[in-house]
Amino acid sequence: MNAIAITEPGGPKVLQPVQRPIPEPGPGEVRIAVRAAGVNRPDMLQRQGAYPPPKGASDLPGLEVSGTIDALGEGVSRWSAGNQVCALVPGGGYAEYCIAHASNCLPLPAGFTFTEAAAVPETFFTVWHNVFERGGLGRGETMLVHGGASGIGTTAIQLAVAFGARVIVTAGTDEKCKACVALGAHRAINYRSEDFVDAVRNATDGHGADVILDMVGGDYIDRNYSAAAIDGRIVQIAFLKGRKAEADFSKLMMKRLTHTGSTLRARSVEFKARLASELDEAVWPLLEQRKVAPVIDMIFPLADAWRAHERMEESAHTGKIVLDVA
Amino acid sequence: MNAIAITEPGGPKVLQPVQRPIPEPGPGEVRIAVRAAGVNRPDMLQRQGAYPPPKGASDLPGLEVSGTIDALGEGVSRWSAGNQVCALVPGGGYAEYCIAHASNCLPLPAGFTFTEAAAVPETFFTVWHNVFERGGLGRGETMLVHGGASGIGTTAIQLAVAFGARVIVTAGTDEKCKACVALGAHRAINYRSEDFVDAVRNATDGHGADVILDMVGGDYIDRNYSAAAIDGRIVQIAFLKGRKAEADFSKLMMKRLTHTGSTLRARSVEFKARLASELDEAVWPLLEQRKVAPVIDMIFPLADAWRAHERMEESAHTGKIVLDVA
Repeated sequence: MNAIAITEPGGPKVLQPVQRPIPEPGPGEVRIAVRAAGVNRPDMLQRQGAYPPPKGASDLPGLEVSGTIDALGEGVSRWSAGNQVCALVPGGGYAEYCIAHASNCLPLPAGFTFTEAAAVPETFFTVWHNVFERGGLGRGETMLVHGGASGIGTTAIQLAVAFGARVIVTAGTDEKCKACVALGAHRAINYRSEDFVDAVRNATDGHGADVILDMVGGDYIDRNYSAAAIDGRIVQIAFLKGRKAEADFSKLMMKRLTHTGSTLRARSVEFKARLASELDEAVWPLLEQRKVAPVIDMIFPLADAWRAHERMEESAHTGKIVLDVA
Repeated sequence: MNAIAITEPGGPKVLQPVQRPIPEPGPGEVRIAVRAAGVNRPDMLQRQGAYPPPKGASDLPGLEVSGTIDALGEGVSRWSAGNQVCALVPGGGYAEYCIAHASNCLPLPAGFTFTEAAAVPETFFTVWHNVFERGGLGRGETMLVHGGASGIGTTAIQLAVAFGARVIVTAGTDEKCKACVALGAHRAINYRSEDFVDAVRNATDGHGADVILDMVGGDYIDRNYSAAAIDGRIVQIAFLKGRKAEADFSKLMMKRLTHTGSTLRARSVEFKARLASELDEAVWPLLEQRKVAPVIDMIFPLADAWRAHERMEESAHTGKIVLDVA
């Protein structure tokens, strides 16, 4: 089969077309004939050699796919060959065939293209767990999302609004800010021209943000402690500006903040299966009614995966970048 | 009445005997004829001018007392004059009479002296909320307590052990370490001669601490992130080594840690009433059976409150320092 491999750690150009044997599904797994694959930040880290695939996973990049089920491993009864699905996978998405655990697949949402469906799993699983479970965002609360125009950001805005919260975002251009407001954000802060701590305070009459979803880190951490409300929850999902930082932890104690975080890829198949089943119940109906939809930035052919990485590294995108596989 | 006032911000000697009018209980409050008063770290901060009393509270220091109820405010039916109680108070404990909210009083545990009972409220309310509620310490889990020989530390050891957890402590002398082990700690680390991160790793077969109760801050924060187990909870209740510090937050994200904290004094009367009622049910029986008891370091006469502060500032104590009032 055709696939894109990381030939050595490095820049986008180390992503090269290769031929690989078609993989065989093990017990509980399915093989998907891939139609489209989503591109995610962890793929960049893996390409740079900073995020090795978990044990047992393919060495090919790619954490989410859509396509048609093509072969079933032992003991799989939920799916049949020919079913159209999207799936969260521990690796191997940049390829014509990909192995997924049966419980980590979800049906293609009715009316969705394969490209749209490939843009769903990674950000929806991530937002669902981190915003609603870990962050406990409730109806009527205010969430601050950094990187509001990213794949995660555009998903977080729509889901939070759909479940009755107010959303404030930061983004790096006025165009991205406009896109976030169009998706339902109550207020978008251009971080190049405004201080988000003051802006959040003003936008909430001094209350602060009840939940902060942060993929930036660095000096944002101490500023998040300032921007958070009493009893606020800060959920860390990446560190675009660096993982080491100084902070004044008396704000964490005095305001009784909770600072936590998580990564999705390292979690068990069972954990992801639980999220899949919650999403199926709570979020798939919203997708099928188009109340919530992935925002697609650009689609590249599989062979041009390096261009997709280049675009993500320039942070020029709004929403998801997807690879068209077949 | 006789009381000890903070005559100006400064060292222990600014604590001076004064005469004050006997205070009158307001609605829902009781007046306690004080027999003993506990001494706590926040009293030092208040004396130094760094921790002003909350609005409406006495300007006299003292956050916990024991004694006899002497007058009832409007609407108090739970207590009668003559009842022996201990109480958490928002200030004013270093005095012959002190006002407490009726719901923030608990009966003197059967068999307890007034001195022992005065040593209970602040540390037991603090440990109950931070270790079991905020930290969610469960049976069979391991807790690391910094400052194991402090009032908070000695209470945390006993309560955690009573509820089926394993406890590791840090302390600054071999004598303090021995005292902690005698109270039930599984392992005591002299932080002057051992690195607690390595010691915790070794004592838990690499698992780490499920809950860390930290009153130290400073460089302990990043080291707590290293010493914590996957899904560990770190609860910050003070900053003896400083509130600002650099940390590597990727440990927080990769291990899915939860870093939180709280202060007791700022909480509402209703919040403290809830804690009081939980302690009455879950912990008072343990006190009355002597399965758990406050560790008394030294007792000073009220007029010598400055000596009590001096001792606490030298960190020479193990357990609680108490003032004998009457």
